[in-house]
Amino acid sequence: MPSISKRGGTVPMSPFRKLIPFADKAKAAGKHVYHLNIGQPDIETPAYALQKVRETTFKILEYSPAEGNASYRRKLTEYYKKFGIDVNADEVIVTTGASEAIQFALLACLDPGEEVIIPEPFYANYNGFAQIANVSIRPITSHIETGYALPDIAAFESMITPKTRGIFITNPSNPTGTFYSRETLEGLAALARKYGLFLFADEVYRDFCYDDNTFFSILNIPGIEQHAILIDSISKRYSACGARVGALVTRNQDVLGAVLRYAKLRLSPPGFGQILAEATLEMEDTYINEVKEEYRRRRDVVYARLSQMPGVVSYRPGGAFYCFAKFPVDSAEHFCQWLLEEFEYNGATVMLSPGEGFYATPGLGVDEARLAYVLNCHDLEAAMDCLEAALKEYPGRIQAKEEISAGLASR
Amino acid sequence: MPSISKRGGTVPMSPFRKLIPFADKAKAAGKHVYHLNIGQPDIETPAYALQKVRETTFKILEYSPAEGNASYRRKLTEYYKKFGIDVNADEVIVTTGASEAIQFALLACLDPGEEVIIPEPFYANYNGFAQIANVSIRPITSHIETGYALPDIAAFESMITPKTRGIFITNPSNPTGTFYSRETLEGLAALARKYGLFLFADEVYRDFCYDDNTFFSILNIPGIEQHAILIDSISKRYSACGARVGALVTRNQDVLGAVLRYAKLRLSPPGFGQILAEATLEMEDTYINEVKEEYRRRRDVVYARLSQMPGVVSYRPGGAFYCFAKFPVDSAEHFCQWLLEEFEYNGATVMLSPGEGFYATPGLGVDEARLAYVLNCHDLEAAMDCLEAALKEYPGRIQAKEEISAGLASR
Repeated sequence: MPSISKRGGTVPMSPFRKLIPFADKAKAAGKHVYHLNIGQPDIETPAYALQKVRETTFKILEYSPAEGNASYRRKLTEYYKKFGIDVNADEVIVTTGASEAIQFALLACLDPGEEVIIPEPFYANYNGFAQIANVSIRPITSHIETGYALPDIAAFESMITPKTRGIFITNPSNPTGTFYSRETLEGLAALARKYGLFLFADEVYRDFCYDDNTFFSILNIPGIEQHAILIDSISKRYSACGARVGALVTRNQDVLGAVLRYAKLRLSPPGFGQILAEATLEMEDTYINEVKEEYRRRRDVVYARLSQMPGVVSYRPGGAFYCFAKFPVDSAEHFCQWLLEEFEYNGATVMLSPGEGFYATPGLGVDEARLAYVLNCHDLEAAMDCLEAALKEYPGRIQAKEEISAGLASR
Repeated sequence: MPSISKRGGTVPMSPFRKLIPFADKAKAAGKHVYHLNIGQPDIETPAYALQKVRETTFKILEYSPAEGNASYRRKLTEYYKKFGIDVNADEVIVTTGASEAIQFALLACLDPGEEVIIPEPFYANYNGFAQIANVSIRPITSHIETGYALPDIAAFESMITPKTRGIFITNPSNPTGTFYSRETLEGLAALARKYGLFLFADEVYRDFCYDDNTFFSILNIPGIEQHAILIDSISKRYSACGARVGALVTRNQDVLGAVLRYAKLRLSPPGFGQILAEATLEMEDTYINEVKEEYRRRRDVVYARLSQMPGVVSYRPGGAFYCFAKFPVDSAEHFCQWLLEEFEYNGATVMLSPGEGFYATPGLGVDEARLAYVLNCHDLEAAMDCLEAALKEYPGRIQAKEEISAGLASR
């Protein structure tokens, strides 16, 4: 019997994958599970866009061009203009989700054995895309105490080796919701230029920036036109995860050429998904503004509740729909499993993503977890009730310093 | 300015890619181009299946499970039963086209530097998938004189090295239309078992087998349950290339596990495409029988016409919708370019895929080309009229032996 490849046996997995059987068991036992572990929003896909798919009348579902439908690419450039991004349709290649765009970017820009620097915690699937491309991720650690602000440029500079080909960021960040400002990005851009590195930015959450945060794209930074590679997707923006439509945008013609060759290999991105994606761009901004406002409200709920939980460290995320938190527990993974296996509050429990899997540096994130606020405010409050009660009951709770002092004082 | 990767600059390209600008120019000049170069059929997608997509009423286009919708996977197993393939739904992983299934198969079964044996001429994009997986294709040459029959088992055996991990076939074949019989497959299976190799089979054309050819899947061969990996797609079967829905099917649990991990990385296959795919499996066989009969008629047209062209070597393909032919020309690539650039017959010309790009062994296929019979019989006849006239006019024509003898005799 032939054995599978070494890489096939070691594909990095989702941080919450091990918990799924426990969640299934909890649900089978009648417990309600509030899923804050996944990035599948409960927001409705724009009815207008779904309708456009349903009103199609073509008779043959043909391959689209490998680079995507011309009309969709043109409309995408109009959408980008709203963010000051001035690109032409030839600089946009439509992909099968952001996943494929990331894969193409790594293949087109890095050879096997080369490296890309990524601030951690980062979207865990980057590990898998790096494994397929046979390249290494050099993690640079950011910290919850600063709301996972980007490490300073000197720290990035110290990570650069002769094998480094690029820096990869997610802005706003999944999994932390951290927003990177224009100034922050300009620092990275200067570094990319100084060392001749690519600057990759996964900007799929750009429409979800809160408070005074004005989104600024790496494609808007003068002088790094040949370095900047933008990754995009409609999945989260229009709650259309199943469409599988993303994009790679760059002004670097060599990169475009290489990505187009990879795109031609897989023939075309999905046909119906592109029709839906194009339709979203014919809509007024009302939809996206309402969705953003809804996520902002949810963010406020999650942040307010976490702030009130003794011993929990968190911060107010500036974008996306994720938040990280540090819990007063022995192990976030044990805690998350216990939540599903042993805990129940009003017939319900909550599922989180343990933090460790979002770090590449061993030993980091063991007492952290990611929360995706993909439920409505009512359910979020109920989920937070569970979490709050659970932290009081959890046998592996570690007393925070202030609690210990309080305990000593009351003796 | 950062430069792209070496691999990004050397992604293998489609055999007809260089001809596209010439085709565009011909069309711009008002010439009609009969496209026999591509695998995009003119057959209508089943109206029933398109309608099912258009009748959907869901409000959120969510991720499907990474392995595909359970209901679709179940129905696929029913479809496979028609070919005697007895698998359960857990042994089917839905992919984004056959392209992704091939990519997953190579990643799950081969490590970088390992090898897979593939009979040539083969589907040219396999080169690109091998490049991404960083594995080598060891070609084993088949010949037009035998209708590209599979080389004998001893020839395969002589290609096996310590790095060989599998044998990959396409049955019926793209680009040759060759059908592999049960006996042929059993020979390969015995070899796979003897050497502990995987046996990969791209069987996307299984519904299009003509004459007395009864399709037989590698999954039906006893004793190689752990070796056999089937690649599938609905693109050609239901003329739904833009759906981007394929599948990988195997009974090898380790391979399934690895492929599922790769599938989870890219989150899910396309949502609408899966709905269409599932609907095709609720249909009577009338559609597929009619389509098959249509392709059979077209095959007969192409074969009959090629047989009548002096100096052209061809054969009657047993399946799929492709045929290879050897032309009495100096270079098939020059000939194909000349057809677009210089030639015209009744205001039209024909576009073929030069053969060389389907071979991995340098120097082979230089006077061969692939014809995809994706046009109706009327257009096919007109395309063949063009080809016949062109062969008489082409300045780079090489006289075949019988023509030379005839010429000598008539002096």
